[in-house]
Amino acid sequence: MRIDLNSDLGESFGSYRIGMDDEVIKYVSSVNVACGWHAGDPVIMERTVRMAKENGVAVGAHPGFDDKQGFGRRKIQLPADEIRVMMKYQIGALMAFLQSEGMKMQHVKPHGALYNMAMVDGDIADAVCKAIYEVDPSIYLLAPAGCEMDLAAQRNGLKIAREVFADRAYQEDGTLVPRSLPGAVLHDPEEILARVLRMVKEGKVTTIDGKDIDISADSICVHGDNEKALRIVETIKNGLEQAGIELRNFGEEAGKVNRK
Amino acid sequence: MRIDLNSDLGESFGSYRIGMDDEVIKYVSSVNVACGWHAGDPVIMERTVRMAKENGVAVGAHPGFDDKQGFGRRKIQLPADEIRVMMKYQIGALMAFLQSEGMKMQHVKPHGALYNMAMVDGDIADAVCKAIYEVDPSIYLLAPAGCEMDLAAQRNGLKIAREVFADRAYQEDGTLVPRSLPGAVLHDPEEILARVLRMVKEGKVTTIDGKDIDISADSICVHGDNEKALRIVETIKNGLEQAGIELRNFGEEAGKVNRK
Amino acid sequence: MRIDLNSDLGESFGSYRIGMDDEVIKYVSSVNVACGWHAGDPVIMERTVRMAKENGVAVGAHPGFDDKQGFGRRKIQLPADEIRVMMKYQIGALMAFLQSEGMKMQHVKPHGALYNMAMVDGDIADAVCKAIYEVDPSIYLLAPAGCEMDLAAQRNGLKIAREVFADRAYQEDGTLVPRSLPGAVLHDPEEILARVLRMVKEGKVTTIDGKDIDISADSICVHGDNEKALRIVETIKNGLEQAGIELRNFGEEAGKVNRK
Amino acid sequence: MRIDLNSDLGESFGSYRIGMDDEVIKYVSSVNVACGWHAGDPVIMERTVRMAKENGVAVGAHPGFDDKQGFGRRKIQLPADEIRVMMKYQIGALMAFLQSEGMKMQHVKPHGALYNMAMVDGDIADAVCKAIYEVDPSIYLLAPAGCEMDLAAQRNGLKIAREVFADRAYQEDGTLVPRSLPGAVLHDPEEILARVLRMVKEGKVTTIDGKDIDISADSICVHGDNEKALRIVETIKNGLEQAGIELRNFGEEAGKVNRK
Repeated sequence: MRIDLNSDLGESFGSYRIGMDDEVIKYVSSVNVACGWHAGDPVIMERTVRMAKENGVAVGAHPGFDDKQGFGRRKIQLPADEIRVMMKYQIGALMAFLQSEGMKMQHVKPHGALYNMAMVDGDIADAVCKAIYEVDPSIYLLAPAGCEMDLAAQRNGLKIAREVFADRAYQEDGTLVPRSLPGAVLHDPEEILARVLRMVKEGKVTTIDGKDIDISADSICVHGDNEKALRIVETIKNGLEQAGIELRNFGEEAGKVNRK
Repeated sequence: MRIDLNSDLGESFGSYRIGMDDEVIKYVSSVNVACGWHAGDPVIMERTVRMAKENGVAVGAHPGFDDKQGFGRRKIQLPADEIRVMMKYQIGALMAFLQSEGMKMQHVKPHGALYNMAMVDGDIADAVCKAIYEVDPSIYLLAPAGCEMDLAAQRNGLKIAREVFADRAYQEDGTLVPRSLPGAVLHDPEEILARVLRMVKEGKVTTIDGKDIDISADSICVHGDNEKALRIVETIKNGLEQAGIELRNFGEEAGKVNRK
Repeated sequence: MRIDLNSDLGESFGSYRIGMDDEVIKYVSSVNVACGWHAGDPVIMERTVRMAKENGVAVGAHPGFDDKQGFGRRKIQLPADEIRVMMKYQIGALMAFLQSEGMKMQHVKPHGALYNMAMVDGDIADAVCKAIYEVDPSIYLLAPAGCEMDLAAQRNGLKIAREVFADRAYQEDGTLVPRSLPGAVLHDPEEILARVLRMVKEGKVTTIDGKDIDISADSICVHGDNEKALRIVETIKNGLEQAGIELRNFGEEAGKVNRK
Repeated sequence: MRIDLNSDLGESFGSYRIGMDDEVIKYVSSVNVACGWHAGDPVIMERTVRMAKENGVAVGAHPGFDDKQGFGRRKIQLPADEIRVMMKYQIGALMAFLQSEGMKMQHVKPHGALYNMAMVDGDIADAVCKAIYEVDPSIYLLAPAGCEMDLAAQRNGLKIAREVFADRAYQEDGTLVPRSLPGAVLHDPEEILARVLRMVKEGKVTTIDGKDIDISADSICVHGDNEKALRIVETIKNGLEQAGIELRNFGEEAGKVNRK
């Protein structure tokens, strides 16, 4: 039994610092690296890729809208085909740094507003999948099971790794409880660990309304942007190990780099 | 006997148009494609790469400073190492579009102020060469013989194709007469063609002071941003063909794509 | 009897040229000047303001989303309050150039996607009006009668000048026929002139379905980005003069600058 | 006897935070507010202006190069006249927020590389002064005595307030010891306070070589970007008060807002 832990990294920009990259990288097996549009810059990207290599962590691209002021969280209405090309640009940019280190890109996970739009819009989901496939069909899409991106990956012959959220409440249809509602975000590390273990071992999660639903998890999305988040990731990592579950990234070729 | 003709392409941006790309591509064997920093954007980049493929023209990256308002012509004082990473970013971004089309990047030619700085500054020239070599050591640098980039390419084990300028006057040390001086730019298509033929066939050019110097030419830099420039390129292409000189790009693997 | 003609100006950017500013400024009484976010830059802004002064034309700000690649035509979902502050920033930036020339800002007209969103969204319309009012309550909003911006201007105590479109077909509710539908755009200069004269003299326009509706016109929006558009503006200007209608901007204080 | 304390503020950007603005504003009488090019954005600008108003602190513009990744610290070679227009743009943008609050802009202080270039280049210094004067001749330039900006201010009829640096060692010609040299930056709050008191009361400072030189101080530049810097500012403020020196901004009209 194995599972991947993924976290966003490389979101600093120039003199601006966000995230505790040096810390969180110790606890995860995959990282999603910002590509200089919503966050990050070439200097940060190279440093992050090298840090991933040193830590035996697989790397994915984390492309977003061209919107640093909004941190990629503003929805921008673009023709789907422009989303496809802007993603290729960002994937390629990160790939240059991986190639230099003899590394392979494991996956692509869209960021922020782009992620949210691709979750529910089939055309945008297709654009996301085509962008990845056209650059390199061996790269995985990282996205939740059942969303439009999942369907599009299947339509486009793209490999997909399915992610779940460690600290978020689920609804009966498998989607997340919106952050605006009470109970949407979980805070207790032990409760979060218990849910994670059940998702990995049984493929089940209890919804906010108390029902059990099936859930498919190749990777667990965690955060590392503050001390509290870091403690949760540490709890999850240790808990998985104690339960005998191997912490390993999902990419076959990228699998060389994995957590000891 | 063969020679390459190279021209800058893909310098439009969003709704803004610069250059007569559709026309000039008919006359050249290599194009330098802007990478979205000083000019170009992902939509333009994909379109330009596809246009190059259709026309059997080899593609190089044309990275520049992050300065669209200044069109990459403003000198920006950056640590050489940041120039290295910003070049890798841009090379990778363009590579994604080439990879999608099953094409290989033939060369990299820095743009504008970056080109001028790398011509005379050994540290920046090293940064330029390292950026290319680290991403893919089979890619050529395209630069004039004898400049700091030429020396750096040799220091760094990088392949180099040497370019000359069809419409510019030369000084005795092999450098260009500055544009600010009279006679720096040639305008007569027939005179330009005669010089080009002599550079290719004899490896000689007459300086502005009337002396003959040796000149090494793997590629001739031409322009396509206005009707007059286009007529010059056409004259050169036809003149080369009539002189029995093959118009072909310089890349070995990229050599598949060449002008009929 | 008098009317204002307004046109977008100053949409060039760095080395990129858009529009025939030198030509269209001869035919209009007010210009909407891009503020460096969706188009324009400080150099272009100063040049455009000076050109307006020389031609006796009133100046308004034409703020848009921070999106040069999309030319401000992409809808970006921002909190209304962020739209308010980004508009103030752009209004202030243009005002610096007007103040230097001893000129007063006559009006503000949002650009592209921002204009379209503010037409139909009351919160965004309020943000637009508050931005203007907070900087200087004597500045006019320039917008069509009856849209959300019109209502918001009245709610916020802001002066409004109402614009109509010379070359667009209208629906019975006073809104424009979408560009995607046949007949949405008129092309015949004489037909356009006849409609303009009727809008100004009678306050009436015939809809695409052949009915007459009331229409309120303080200003007529025209275009100057190509030769054909320019001929239409010229026809309108000459036709208005022959009909004895004075071509004059709407601002009381800005009214000093007006077409001879 | 009175003196002004000035500090850079509003250098955060979108989700990115830099500086301890809420703290440092309690100890200073003037703030230099970033204008959205090298740092800051409209949301931050409005918040900072309002914070200044609440704290009775005078506001100046802190324009810089268009270079957020480099935080305005990279020298960019622009024609002096483009520096003039880019400064006017930024001054105007900030002015919109001041005007909304019924405040007047007290001063302009160029940022980073622009400041350093204007210190030693007469053409750029002229451009800086012209930009300010053209927008509003009652605004002060804030710059060190004796530098090219000081001379340019006098040439251009611009008011100038002269600043000294609390924590920097001086050379015999009145310029700062470069940061790269040992002893360039002072760290002991008490030593810094003693120097500040002497500069204000006697107009003298001891150079790094132990000689006394004259120094002209209308304002003391302090920093607030970390806890240690904050303690230094607090020490200076308290020390000035105990010495009976009034902490007050230098602008006549802006003088309404001053520290209690």
